[in-house]
Parts: sequence; structure tokens; C-alpha cells
Amino acid sequence: MSKIRVTIWNEFRHERKNEGVKKIYPEGLHKAIGTGIACDEFEIRYATLDEPDHGLTDEVLDSTDVLIWWGHAAHAEVRDEIVAKVQQHVWDGMGLICLHSSHMSKIFRLLNGTSGKLHWREVGERERIWCVNPAHPIAAGIPETFVLEHEEMYGEPFCIAWDAQPVFISWFEGGEVFRSGVTFQRGNGRIFYFRPGHEAYRTFYNEMVLRVISNGVRWAAPTLRAPYPKTHREGSYEPISDKGVDFPKAGIILN
Amino acid sequence: MSKIRVTIWNEFRHERKNEGVKKIYPEGLHKAIGTGIACDEFEIRYATLDEPDHGLTDEVLDSTDVLIWWGHAAHAEVRDEIVAKVQQHVWDGMGLICLHSSHMSKIFRLLNGTSGKLHWREVGERERIWCVNPAHPIAAGIPETFVLEHEEMYGEPFCIAWDAQPVFISWFEGGEVFRSGVTFQRGNGRIFYFRPGHEAYRTFYNEMVLRVISNGVRWAAPTLRAPYPKTHREGSYEPISDKGVDFPKAGIILN
Amino acid sequence: MSKIRVTIWNEFRHERKNEGVKKIYPEGLHKAIGTGIACDEFEIRYATLDEPDHGLTDEVLDSTDVLIWWGHAAHAEVRDEIVAKVQQHVWDGMGLICLHSSHMSKIFRLLNGTSGKLHWREVGERERIWCVNPAHPIAAGIPETFVLEHEEMYGEPFCIAWDAQPVFISWFEGGEVFRSGVTFQRGNGRIFYFRPGHEAYRTFYNEMVLRVISNGVRWAAPTLRAPYPKTHREGSYEPISDKGVDFPKAGIILN
Amino acid sequence: MSKIRVTIWNEFRHERKNEGVKKIYPEGLHKAIGTGIACDEFEIRYATLDEPDHGLTDEVLDSTDVLIWWGHAAHAEVRDEIVAKVQQHVWDGMGLICLHSSHMSKIFRLLNGTSGKLHWREVGERERIWCVNPAHPIAAGIPETFVLEHEEMYGEPFCIAWDAQPVFISWFEGGEVFRSGVTFQRGNGRIFYFRPGHEAYRTFYNEMVLRVISNGVRWAAPTLRAPYPKTHREGSYEPISDKGVDFPKAGIILN
Repeated sequence: MSKIRVTIWNEFRHERKNEGVKKIYPEGLHKAIGTGIACDEFEIRYATLDEPDHGLTDEVLDSTDVLIWWGHAAHAEVRDEIVAKVQQHVWDGMGLICLHSSHMSKIFRLLNGTSGKLHWREVGERERIWCVNPAHPIAAGIPETFVLEHEEMYGEPFCIAWDAQPVFISWFEGGEVFRSGVTFQRGNGRIFYFRPGHEAYRTFYNEMVLRVISNGVRWAAPTLRAPYPKTHREGSYEPISDKGVDFPKAGIILN
Repeated sequence: MSKIRVTIWNEFRHERKNEGVKKIYPEGLHKAIGTGIACDEFEIRYATLDEPDHGLTDEVLDSTDVLIWWGHAAHAEVRDEIVAKVQQHVWDGMGLICLHSSHMSKIFRLLNGTSGKLHWREVGERERIWCVNPAHPIAAGIPETFVLEHEEMYGEPFCIAWDAQPVFISWFEGGEVFRSGVTFQRGNGRIFYFRPGHEAYRTFYNEMVLRVISNGVRWAAPTLRAPYPKTHREGSYEPISDKGVDFPKAGIILN
Repeated sequence: MSKIRVTIWNEFRHERKNEGVKKIYPEGLHKAIGTGIACDEFEIRYATLDEPDHGLTDEVLDSTDVLIWWGHAAHAEVRDEIVAKVQQHVWDGMGLICLHSSHMSKIFRLLNGTSGKLHWREVGERERIWCVNPAHPIAAGIPETFVLEHEEMYGEPFCIAWDAQPVFISWFEGGEVFRSGVTFQRGNGRIFYFRPGHEAYRTFYNEMVLRVISNGVRWAAPTLRAPYPKTHREGSYEPISDKGVDFPKAGIILN
Repeated sequence: MSKIRVTIWNEFRHERKNEGVKKIYPEGLHKAIGTGIACDEFEIRYATLDEPDHGLTDEVLDSTDVLIWWGHAAHAEVRDEIVAKVQQHVWDGMGLICLHSSHMSKIFRLLNGTSGKLHWREVGERERIWCVNPAHPIAAGIPETFVLEHEEMYGEPFCIAWDAQPVFISWFEGGEVFRSGVTFQRGNGRIFYFRPGHEAYRTFYNEMVLRVISNGVRWAAPTLRAPYPKTHREGSYEPISDKGVDFPKAGIILN
């Protein structure tokens, strides 16, 4: 069985500019995630905003099975033509995992069709995550509930599309709830949004968070990598009655 | 009860350039739709591509409850900033009805998150439309099945989001099937996609098609016209334990 | 416009046997609900477990647009043939609102296809209800969040069907979350499950709870009251080629 | 990797009583399916209506990962207590594949919550099946469309729950359409309904049909085999404020 080729994309700005964040993720949170989910099944690469083409060249995208995305303060700096390429790859079957503040990334909003807006508060409060669909492959090995002692709060209403299949719902110390883990499909591609992961906390060292992301990679790996063709169909499968001179002729029967 | 303010937007090119189409819809298909659905409940206006701002000024959008959209050959000419405004209005509650080839319009793709691609064939073949959810408000007064003698074929797979709630599924003479009437919600806005309506046929004079569009207008009319705010939340509803000096302070309790 | 005919069904045992409950709902919680939602649009009747046929005769069901159901300790005493009748009426278009512990009622489980199981705790803790779909008709006039100071806790995972369209999600003081308001359709009938309403608390005097139930009645009122026929189809709509002597003949073309 | 343990259940009456059917499926259609999907990944057993307990003893159900079900004329003869056991096993994670006329079986109706009704016609007409979600694991290796030359017609509206995720939609020669392949989840169990398979035709020798069923088995195999407990929760995860003497005491904090 061939490995799942994972590319972890990170904005990678906070970790270079903010001393507190640098202390937690000295090599960037993408490296913490990559180290945390490393296993025989995955082949892991990295890409970041400030590389040429944000590290997402055609070659990289063509050889990526699942793309993990973390962006926050610089969504607007991600170039539209790169986003359009990523979108096309998802429609053609590439998996996508959007983490935390990526709910406002161009790619998530474009694929979801929504604003991605929500309420938030940053006081390092306790988040309790509940698994609401224990039979979902993304929940494999995850207990009914687990806690992140310090996280940013995200609160409902969360402006997402209604095919959001909930796997996790969060409880926050300050009184909010949030659909924290939800799945989608767009074209042939599977998309998983997972809420935790503020840069100021040690979330990406949490064993449960890493296991959810690993499960997400396995779930989002393509079953079919092919374009959804917009195709003019010459001829028909079943015979079409003669419509006379006012209409184009039905072509050759196809099979 | 106040009237539902409907704006019917049409590309309005085929009817001016193509003699065959002009004969069918001499004043444009938007006028045929508007005349066909006219009733005491609706206040109807029109807007077309070649007007300034495509006829979709702030004033028009602010006073539109439901926008009906028909585009085909000139999707690319619709300016991005106008599309962004329409998208925001839908997120804030405005209803949207996308007809026929509008599956490839910028606004439908942006709100749906998909490519909108499908198969098609134009030989004027017979389309038989089945109502699969007779209890849906959009199906009120529509029989189990009705026929359009001449239509363009659209065939599955149709690249749409999976919250597509099917109301109608079509059978085509040449052997294809298609989810012809599907509903979505994005933000506060309700969206109805309805397949029929090729410019070369008399579809928008069909009594059943007009009734479906009328029902769609009533269903998509806003229940709430308000932004989904992306809001920083000062303070919390429930008390948050003291996190010490390493974390931002929890604000004032909200209520 | 004719009134919506509402029948409120209550087990009506706790209120007669338990002094604490009797003090809160001296005439039964069905009467508190009925008084609380009374308005010109509704025509309200009551039915209870210990009446003949549980108060749900053919005549009552035939003239009920929306049935509200509250059961708790005596689900097993509801006779199967009455439940089957209610199920058929929902399939044929009657609306159903299941309150609180009715998640384990025969009728909810039969229509949902699930066990309806969940976690619970009864310490009178604070429940904070969040509206996650403010544009849903059931959320009309409901604020983003409201509080019930004392309620029984229901916690995820909640074993319900995945077409559960969430309108409300609850936060509990003790750390749990719950999909508290969810909608379904079965056959032609619309179903709304709403979580609050333990008999030991004053929940059915809460203005927000009553407004949600009123909105639910309006939303669940039938658009179509007709059986989904299981019908042998004589003849076909489109011509069928001759299959020879081994197959039954295609009948007369239907239209 | 351990094998997927498949039990194929068949009513097995037509094949013994009807000469035409016997000629097509001399050992019963369950054996044709079992032979057709046999591979190293599956361990296949059979069970039929007229065996003691319909062949579905506790021992059999406990050691079944995926149950395939074909019933038609004798749904009413399947004993309720056996159906209840199967339902519980599905809620606890066992996969279920319901074929053809099993849309009216007790088990499908109980798990779906619907009547399962539809239109039908038996003239051996042509069915053309379209794959509408080519990226779904059940569609692996299945072309965009394939034909069954002779099948019974099933037509919309199909009374099923609205979480029906469509994988296949059928076109029929006589003018009908049908959601022919749809997936559900109930509790921890995955359910796949697949339409083709009338006893009078050679459908279960068709390579595509067999591949769809094989894919269905792999997709429905349990990820979690565990009950959804209905559990009273002693204590709470988060501290609960003192409610005074009028309320039950909050228990011990759980963790």
C-alpha cells in the first residue's frame, strides 16, 4: 500500500515574530503537527506562505494527497491564483484539512460557500470537546470527551454550509458551544474542519488533537483523483425521437 | 402583509442577438418570467447585465427580498465586486433563485463551493420532471410528474454541495437523470436552484415552471435580514477561572 | 386563513402523583403549554395517556394539524396500534413536536429510526441554549442565547438520525453539550425535537421556550396532507420496447 | 488484517416455488450473491427465513460484521423479536445492506423511520444507473453509467429519510427516476440501500451490481462495535454551583 502524501501548509508568521509563540513552536506549528502525526503510513512535506508560490507549486499539489492548512492573520496575502489551484485540486479529489483560524481562509470560504464567521474570545479558557459521532473514522481511538486546558474560544452561530456533518462539538468555560469538527465533500474532495489550534497554546502537542488530525488525513485521502468534467455530450445513450428541422439532430447513440 | 420584493436579473444577450430566441422572448426572458409569476404578493423589478453595475446597485440590493438569476454565455463579464455584494446580501438573508445555466454563474459557484459542472446536450429532447418531495413548499400545487417537450439536457454527475435537498429529479429522453430542483442555505439566505430554462425553448411560458418559480420566491423570502457578525466577544456569559499572568484576562461577565 | 389545529398530548402522571410537580403544573404541563402558546392562529386541544385510546382517536388525529408530545416514565404503556396510527398520520403530513424525554418515546424512535439514547443528570443545573441557525423559522424572535436556570442535563452523544438539522445547541453547567433543537422530515410530515421541559422545573412557563414551541407549530403545520402511495403502476409514461414473450407486456402509455 | 464477516440473508421462497426464478437462481439468490462477491477479504455465511430464528441467532449476529438483506413477499413473517435484535446490532455498529424489495422490510422501515413506499412496474424494462458521487467508496471501479437490460421499475417519490446520501440514481425506459443507491447511519451502524435485484432477472450475476455490493460491504464494515449507552451520569465534569435544598445535589466531579 502506497503512503498518503501529506503537505502541511502554515502561514508561519506568528512563530517568527512573537516571542511567546516562538517559545511554544520554535520551528513553526507545521513542524509540530508533522512530527506529531508522523508514522509509516504518511509521507510528510511542508509549505509556508513566504515561500515562492506559497510553497504550493503545481508539482507539490500534483503529488499531495491531503493538504493540511493553518492560516490566521495573513489570509489576504494568499494569492488568488494559488487558491484557485488548490480549489481545483480539491474538486478533483485532493483531501483538505482546515485547522482553527483557517475558517476565515480564502480556500475554506470558497469551498464552503459561506463567510465562515463566528464569535471568539481569547482568554485561554478551558475547552471540553465532545465526540458526537463515535463511529466516524475520524473519531477512532478518541474518548467521549477530552479537555484542552487553554484555548481560544470560538462560539456559535458558526456560518458554515449545512452539509456540515458534526463529529465533535465543544463546550467552553465561558458559556459557548461550537461545532468543532465537521466534514464536507466538494466535487471529489473530502474536507475536514477542526477547530482547536490557537498559536499561543500548546494544542498541537496534545495527543488527542494529533490523533484526530491523523484520522482526518486517512479519512480525507482520495478515493478518486479525477476532474468532474463539464462535457458536451455528442450523441445520446438512449434513442431520441426526431424533433424536425427546428432542432439540432440527436447524434449517434453512444452505446 | 408587505409584498415580497423580487428582482429578476437576466444576462439579456441571446434575446437581442439571436433571431430565434428573440422570437420566443421578444422583451427578454426576465420579462416573460416576471409576467408569468406576477401576483398581488410580489413587487417585481428587473436588472440586466449591460446596465450600469449590471442593474444591481446598493439601493436595488438593499430593497430586494428575493433575487432571481439567469446567466449563460457571459458569466465572466459579471464584475467580481458586484458578485461579492450579492453574496454578502445572501449571507445576510436575501433569497436567491438560480435558473438553468446559472449553475456556472460566479454567484452560484461562490455560494455553493463547487464547480457546478455537469453534462449537457442540446437537441430539444423531452424532459420529464419528477417531484421527489411533494410536501416541500416549493412543490405546492405541482403534480407528481410533468413534461417539458423540448429542453436542453443536463446530466449527472452534477458537481454540487451535498446539502442539496432534492425537490425535483429529471428524466431525459436520451437516457440521463439530473437533480433539477435543489435547495441550500448559506448564512441566513435560502437558495433554490432550478434546472429548466434554456433560452431556445418556451420553458418560461410553462405553467408548472412558473408555479415552481413562484413557490421558490415565497420559500426563499427572508425570515431574518441581518449580518452573521464576526465578533470579538468582550467578557463571557459564564465565569472563567483565573488563568494567571500568562494569559489574557477574562473580561467582564456579559449578563 | 384557517387555524392550525394543535393537539397537546401529555403522559400526565407526574403531575398527579408527585407533590412537587403538582405544585408547578397543577393542571398538567400540557395545560401550561396550551395556555402559554394560545393565540388566534391556533385551535388547541388536549389528550392524555389515561384517556381511552390515549385520547388519540381517529377523529382526533384526522383533525389534528400538529401533535405536541410529552412522555417520560410510561412510554411502554402507549399502545402499539395507537403509535402506528400516529406514525401513519405523520407520514401523511401531520406535524409532530417531541418535547424533552419524548426522545425515548415509541413514536420518536419509530420515526427517527434510532434508539434516541443520550446521557443525563438531574441536579437542576443551568442550561444555556444557543441558536445556531437564526434564519430558521423556528428561531424567529429568539435571541442568540438564553438561559434556563434549572434544568435536567441531556448530553451528547445523542443517538439520532443524521438528517437532524440543528437549530439549537445547549451548554450545561456541568460540562456537557447537546443538540437541543433539531428538525426532520419523514414522509410528508415535519418533526421538531426540542430538548427542554423536565417536569420538576418551571420550563413551560419560560417565554422563550413557549415562543420556540409556537414557532415549531407554525413550521410543522402540513403543506400537504396525503398518503405516499405504494402503487403498482399500470402502463408507463414513456414507451417501452417490446420485450418478447418472456416478460409481461408494457401496458397502455399513461399520458 | 482480519476478514470482514458477511452474512447474506434471503427470504428464499421464490427460488423454491417459482420455476422461472428457480432456473435463474437454482440455489437461491443469496448463493449467487455470495459466489459473486467472494474474495479473500470476506468470510461469507448464509441465513434464510425458514431456518430456526430465520438463521439469525445471537451467535450469528454477534459474529457478523455486515448483514446483507433480501426480502420481498414474506416481510410480515420475519418475527419482531429477531428484527429488534438486528436493529440493536446495527445501532451497536453492525453494517447493513438492504437490497431491492427490502425497502419494505421491517428492518429497513424501522431503521429508516419511513414507510419505504414507492411506485413500481414489472415489465422487464431497461434500467440505466448513474453514479452521482464517483468519489464515494461504494462507487470505486464503477463507470459513470451502466445498464441492466431487464429490471423491475421503482419510481419516485421514494419515502425515505432525508439523510439519504445519493450514490446512484436510476433512469427507467418507461419514464421514471429513482434514488437507487443511498447511504445512512443509525447509531454506530452504516446502512446502504441498493435498488436492483428483482428475483425474475439475472441481476445478481451482473458484474457491476456485484462490485457495488462488494464495495458496500467494505464501506459498511464497523469502525466501532459498541452500544450507545443510555446512561445516568453520576457527578459532573465541570463544577456545578450549589442549588440549595430544593434540587438534587450535584454529585462528585468526574475528572
